[in-house]
Amino acid sequence: MQRLKGFREFFPEPLPPGEEWSCDLRQHIFDCWRTTARRYGFREYDGPPVEPLDLYKAKSGDEIVSQLFNFQDKGKDEVSLRPEMTPTVARMIAAAERAYRKPIKWFSMPQLFRYEAPQKGRLREHFQLNCDLYGEEDPAADAEVVALLIDVLRSLGLTEEDFVVRLSSRKAWQAFYETQGGKPEHAYDFFQAVDKMERDDAETIAKRLAPTGVTPESVKSFIEAGIPTVELQGILDNLSARGLGSFVKVDYGVIRGLAYYTGVVFEAFDRKGEFRAIAGGGRYDNLVGLLSGGKVKMPALGFGMGDVVLALLLRKRGKVPSFASTVDVVVLIEDETLRPESLGLVQRLRESGRAVDYSLTPMKSDKQFKRALELGASHWARLERGAEGAQVRVKNLKTRAEQVGPVDSVLTFL
Amino acid sequence: MQRLKGFREFFPEPLPPGEEWSCDLRQHIFDCWRTTARRYGFREYDGPPVEPLDLYKAKSGDEIVSQLFNFQDKGKDEVSLRPEMTPTVARMIAAAERAYRKPIKWFSMPQLFRYEAPQKGRLREHFQLNCDLYGEEDPAADAEVVALLIDVLRSLGLTEEDFVVRLSSRKAWQAFYETQGGKPEHAYDFFQAVDKMERDDAETIAKRLAPTGVTPESVKSFIEAGIPTVELQGILDNLSARGLGSFVKVDYGVIRGLAYYTGVVFEAFDRKGEFRAIAGGGRYDNLVGLLSGGKVKMPALGFGMGDVVLALLLRKRGKVPSFASTVDVVVLIEDETLRPESLGLVQRLRESGRAVDYSLTPMKSDKQFKRALELGASHWARLERGAEGAQVRVKNLKTRAEQVGPVDSVLTFL
Repeated sequence: MQRLKGFREFFPEPLPPGEEWSCDLRQHIFDCWRTTARRYGFREYDGPPVEPLDLYKAKSGDEIVSQLFNFQDKGKDEVSLRPEMTPTVARMIAAAERAYRKPIKWFSMPQLFRYEAPQKGRLREHFQLNCDLYGEEDPAADAEVVALLIDVLRSLGLTEEDFVVRLSSRKAWQAFYETQGGKPEHAYDFFQAVDKMERDDAETIAKRLAPTGVTPESVKSFIEAGIPTVELQGILDNLSARGLGSFVKVDYGVIRGLAYYTGVVFEAFDRKGEFRAIAGGGRYDNLVGLLSGGKVKMPALGFGMGDVVLALLLRKRGKVPSFASTVDVVVLIEDETLRPESLGLVQRLRESGRAVDYSLTPMKSDKQFKRALELGASHWARLERGAEGAQVRVKNLKTRAEQVGPVDSVLTFL
Repeated sequence: MQRLKGFREFFPEPLPPGEEWSCDLRQHIFDCWRTTARRYGFREYDGPPVEPLDLYKAKSGDEIVSQLFNFQDKGKDEVSLRPEMTPTVARMIAAAERAYRKPIKWFSMPQLFRYEAPQKGRLREHFQLNCDLYGEEDPAADAEVVALLIDVLRSLGLTEEDFVVRLSSRKAWQAFYETQGGKPEHAYDFFQAVDKMERDDAETIAKRLAPTGVTPESVKSFIEAGIPTVELQGILDNLSARGLGSFVKVDYGVIRGLAYYTGVVFEAFDRKGEFRAIAGGGRYDNLVGLLSGGKVKMPALGFGMGDVVLALLLRKRGKVPSFASTVDVVVLIEDETLRPESLGLVQRLRESGRAVDYSLTPMKSDKQFKRALELGASHWARLERGAEGAQVRVKNLKTRAEQVGPVDSVLTFL
């Protein structure tokens, strides 16, 4: 009855021995994702984690099925745990876009699934921030989405020394391919070959490119020259106007494997090249039309950012905040006859928004104090019997300053 | 390629025609759940949404399978989408409890699944707040968990006029059952019969109770008398000390169907009785032992609160806040030669934490202004060319006050 292979359990910190996934870090990542997307005016949506298998076949062809966490449900329907969010959101947009003013800026943070042969460290699920912008074909939209990607990573404490967004263009590659005499029927193979060039050896590269008629040398020259198209230069200028120019560079070595990209494509990488891509995305102007059976045409672009590489990178770069403090105030109950009033104090402090803990049962005074330190509380508060009835004593655990006064004044002591 | 039956899509507000599930309301509920649980010192965890089928059989017997969203995965393993969180968290606790000081107070907000014949309004998934406390058998723990349940609902704007927690006790029922001469082998059937009494007609009740030897009359008298046990009275007193006494009442009509409860049980209902239970829970002191094969013994209790009844109740009682304002500031770009500087202004405002929108492409001035109103912005900001270079004008859309000054002073105008 262990958890299934490739699935994670997220524990509160400090992590138990042998566990590596922190729910606190996950929530920190989720908070940064959500907060930054909202600052950009993006709105949150979600869809079903189980979808008809055909939804993914329609977009990616039958070969995608081998990677999916698909199955037949009890009603004999062929379904799949969602491997990505784009088909779901494209369907939602196609059905509902008339209710929203353009451009539509949406984000989501779904858990995604795939079924692969179990390997060490190969997960079958991850969470992914998805940000998409619908209804605007101007490159200003591309710049807005790339800026959001950059600011999401910055909100997590990463700087231009930690990561860079490599910006490329399917249109630039298409133009190059045509000038090299490439035939339309081999264009997809060509993009796939370029996508794999950074991993492949010279022989494999030559073999993959052979049917397309384009030489490895010309491809390499094109990448090395790296001359921005007018469109890409506009995006660079736009980002520079925001002060984000140092986070991005044109790099035609990025092309993205997926078939449906139509324009700008990009990937974010750590500068040291220790990890796989942190995020990736691009423009996919035809997908909403495809998934709506041609009913809705809608330019679109977006990106996805997974939680796994991100969490590893944040840990490696020392950008994970401390989660040691889990409560603000610990209420000490040393005189058990004051327990009812102390519960009232606990309630009052919690209603003021503070996270408060206390000992549920009688406990020695020094143990309660030790617990307050362990919980990372900033203050403890304690009721005492004074000459004129109960009073409250509050200690600031950083400054060691103590204050005493009527119970009603407790909030002024914090 | 429509979404599967019984699954929801969550849209940003205002909702498109025909859609009823708001991602904004969902996030509002999630925020209140998380914030209140943290105020009580509860820590967040999560587990896999897919689990071995045996995990649920071990806890609930083979008959549970008919209700599960279970299937055979590609590796021929029998698995299930999680129908509840308790087996997962009990396993996590059993494996990792030594790393945590007791009592362990944990919460989670999983999406849960079941497979039932599709009916109108019958969902196959929902989200559920799960709060559990491990390692404390004193009724003070029960009071703490019930107080949390009450404060979660209060954080959503519900009052003692909207809901009540009905408090009961398996131990009280067990004692009653024994005084009535009920035999141990029929105890489970007896609890099941009592659990269904509020729905069943007199004939069915009599039929269900017959094998147990307890009469419907004696059961009804016991419920009507409603005399608190010493334990329940202690919990009532504890809640009264917090000022929460009016949110709870002893009601032995609640007994909870699940087999694994061992002590106090409770359910929260709307006072008008229009909806099914809002939340329910109780003490389950033997489950961690059962799921750990007897290796770890750990008293435990907790509750679950679903998002579906809650969202319906909040709407019906007018407790849903407005989600009309989605940005703080709209930057107007009326002079296109100022667009680069305006992008810098957008960036500066976003970096200050504001949600900011602007027109990605040239747009007539009055349209941009209209858009600012539609987005519910509190201010607009606009760059203008002054005699000494660019300056910024900021308008408060509520007070209609305008301020003009150097671009660097923009944050002081908000």
